Amino acid sequence: MRIKKVAVVGGTHGNEVTGTYLLRRWAANPGEIRRSSFETKTVWANPKAFRENKRYIDADLNRSFSLKDLNDETIDHYEGNRAKVINALLGPKGGRPAFDFTFDIHTTTSNMGVTLILVGDDRYQLRMAAYIKARLENVNLYYFKGRAADYPNLSTVTPRLLGLEIGAIPQGVLRHDIFEQANESLRLGLDYIHKVNRGEKLKLAKQVEVYVHREVVEYPVDAEGNINAMVHKNLQDKDFAPMKRGDAMFETLGGKTILYDKTKVVYPAFINEAAYYPVKIAFMLTEKRKMEI
Amino acid sequence: MRIKKVAVVGGTHGNEVTGTYLLRRWAANPGEIRRSSFETKTVWANPKAFRENKRYIDADLNRSFSLKDLNDETIDHYEGNRAKVINALLGPKGGRPAFDFTFDIHTTTSNMGVTLILVGDDRYQLRMAAYIKARLENVNLYYFKGRAADYPNLSTVTPRLLGLEIGAIPQGVLRHDIFEQANESLRLGLDYIHKVNRGEKLKLAKQVEVYVHREVVEYPVDAEGNINAMVHKNLQDKDFAPMKRGDAMFETLGGKTILYDKTKVVYPAFINEAAYYPVKIAFMLTEKRKMEI
Repeated sequence: MRIKKVAVVGGTHGNEVTGTYLLRRWAANPGEIRRSSFETKTVWANPKAFRENKRYIDADLNRSFSLKDLNDETIDHYEGNRAKVINALLGPKGGRPAFDFTFDIHTTTSNMGVTLILVGDDRYQLRMAAYIKARLENVNLYYFKGRAADYPNLSTVTPRLLGLEIGAIPQGVLRHDIFEQANESLRLGLDYIHKVNRGEKLKLAKQVEVYVHREVVEYPVDAEGNINAMVHKNLQDKDFAPMKRGDAMFETLGGKTILYDKTKVVYPAFINEAAYYPVKIAFMLTEKRKMEI
Repeated sequence: MRIKKVAVVGGTHGNEVTGTYLLRRWAANPGEIRRSSFETKTVWANPKAFRENKRYIDADLNRSFSLKDLNDETIDHYEGNRAKVINALLGPKGGRPAFDFTFDIHTTTSNMGVTLILVGDDRYQLRMAAYIKARLENVNLYYFKGRAADYPNLSTVTPRLLGLEIGAIPQGVLRHDIFEQANESLRLGLDYIHKVNRGEKLKLAKQVEVYVHREVVEYPVDAEGNINAMVHKNLQDKDFAPMKRGDAMFETLGGKTILYDKTKVVYPAFINEAAYYPVKIAFMLTEKRKMEI
C-alpha cells in the first residue's frame, strides 16, 4: 500500500519543546520534510501546554486517543477537544482515516538516546525503524505489542505510525544536539516512506534488536503515599542496559539500598523520567529480543 | 561573631525537588544537620509550588526578598505572603534578625556541578566556600558583588548566607548523585560554622578562584519576540569554561551559527537553564578571578 499522506506531529506534550521548535524550523524550511511521492502535513498538537510549559493542561493528550474517549463528546476539557480536532484532521481512528502515517515527536529526561516507539504489530514501522537504526547512532527500538488501535496514543490516529522519544533532555529545554537527532530521525523516516513508495529495493538486516515493553516499576512510598526513595545512582542513566539479580534499583531517603531480586535479566528504560513522578513510576522494564524484519 | 542560629532552606523553587527531599531525609535523620555549637532549623519554603511541580505559583520566591517588597503589605499573592512569613521567622531582613545564617538549596538544568552562590561581600561566606571547595569534587564559586541586603534573594533574609546551585538535573527530578552532593555540601558548610564557633584553627588556601557575575546574554528572537535560536552544541554543558572570540554561541532554528565576537575572554554559566526561558536568558557571563581569603 502506497502512503499518500503523512502527518508530522510536534508538541503533543507542551514541555517537550523540541517538537514545537522543529515545527518552526520546518515552517521556514518546508523543503526538509517534503517528498515528491506523498504529502506531508505538520500538526502542532498542544499549543496551550507549550505556552504554559506544562505536559498538559487538563489531561495527557498522548493518552486521549482511545476509541472510547474519542467517541465520548462529554469529555470537553482542553486535551479532550484537541484529540477530537486532531482525530477529525488526521483520522478518524478506526474508520477511513484521511492520513496514512503519523510521526509523533517526544523527548524524555531519561538517557534513552534516539528511541523509536513501535506501537502495535505493523511490520512497516518495524522495517522503517530498522532502516533508521542502521543509519543513525544510538538508536533503540521500544516495542508495545498488540493492536495499535487498542492504545490511547496520539499516533494511533492513523493506521501506521512511529513515535520518537529522544533524551536525555530536561523538560522546558531545547538542546541543539537533541534537536539535530530528532530532525535526522524524521528525515530518515520520511526517506524510508519515499523509497518504499517508489519501489526502491532497500537493503535491510534480516533481524533487528527490540526492547519489548513488559511492566512498570513504581517508586517505594511512605505511609502517606509520598515517594521516599530515588533511583539508585548505579541505575541512573543506564537505560537499556541489563539489570541482574542483586543490582541496586533504589536508594531510600534514609539511605537504604533496594536491590533487584528476580533471576530474570531485564532491560530498564524511561529511568527517572520527570513526567512519571505524579503516577509514581520509576522506570519501565523491557525484554530484549531479536525480531525478523 | 559566633553563629547561634542557622536556617537550612529547601524547596524555594518548587520544581527543584532535591531540597524538599533532603528536608524529608533530615526530618528522619536530624542528627545529620545538628551541631552542638548552634541551633539548626529547616524551612520548607514553597510547599505549594512543590505540590504543583512549578518554580513558583504567583512570583519567584527567590526574587521576593527586597526590603521594599517585604515592607509592602499590598503584595498579597502566595509567594509575597510566604516571603513575609519567612522574613518574620528568620529575619527581619535589615533589622535584628532571629537567625544568623541561611543555606538555600537550589538545582539547575545547567552543567554547573556544585556551584556555591556568594551574594554580597561578606568574607565569612567566602572562607566557608573555600573550605567546602577544598573538600569536595567539582565545586565552583559564583560571586554576586555588593551588599547582600541589596539583592532580592531569599538567603539575604539573614546577614550571612550561602546558596547551593547543583546540576545538571532536570526540573521535577530527584537524582541520587545530586542528592548526595547537596547533602555533602551542606554537611561541610555546617562543619565549617561549628569549627569556627569552637575557635578551631582551619587551614585554608591563601586564594580561591571565583567567577564574578557580569551580565546576562539573551536568546535571539524573531519579530514577534519568540526565541528562534538555541545554545550551540559546542557551548552546551560547558559552564565555567572560557569562551573566546570566534566560539559558537547560538545556532538559529534555520541553521545559522552565531559566534562570540568580543576580544574579552569570558566564562559562561547557567547555560541553557530551563527556568530562564520565560525571561529569554540563554546564559550568564562571568569573569574568573582569584580572591584573597
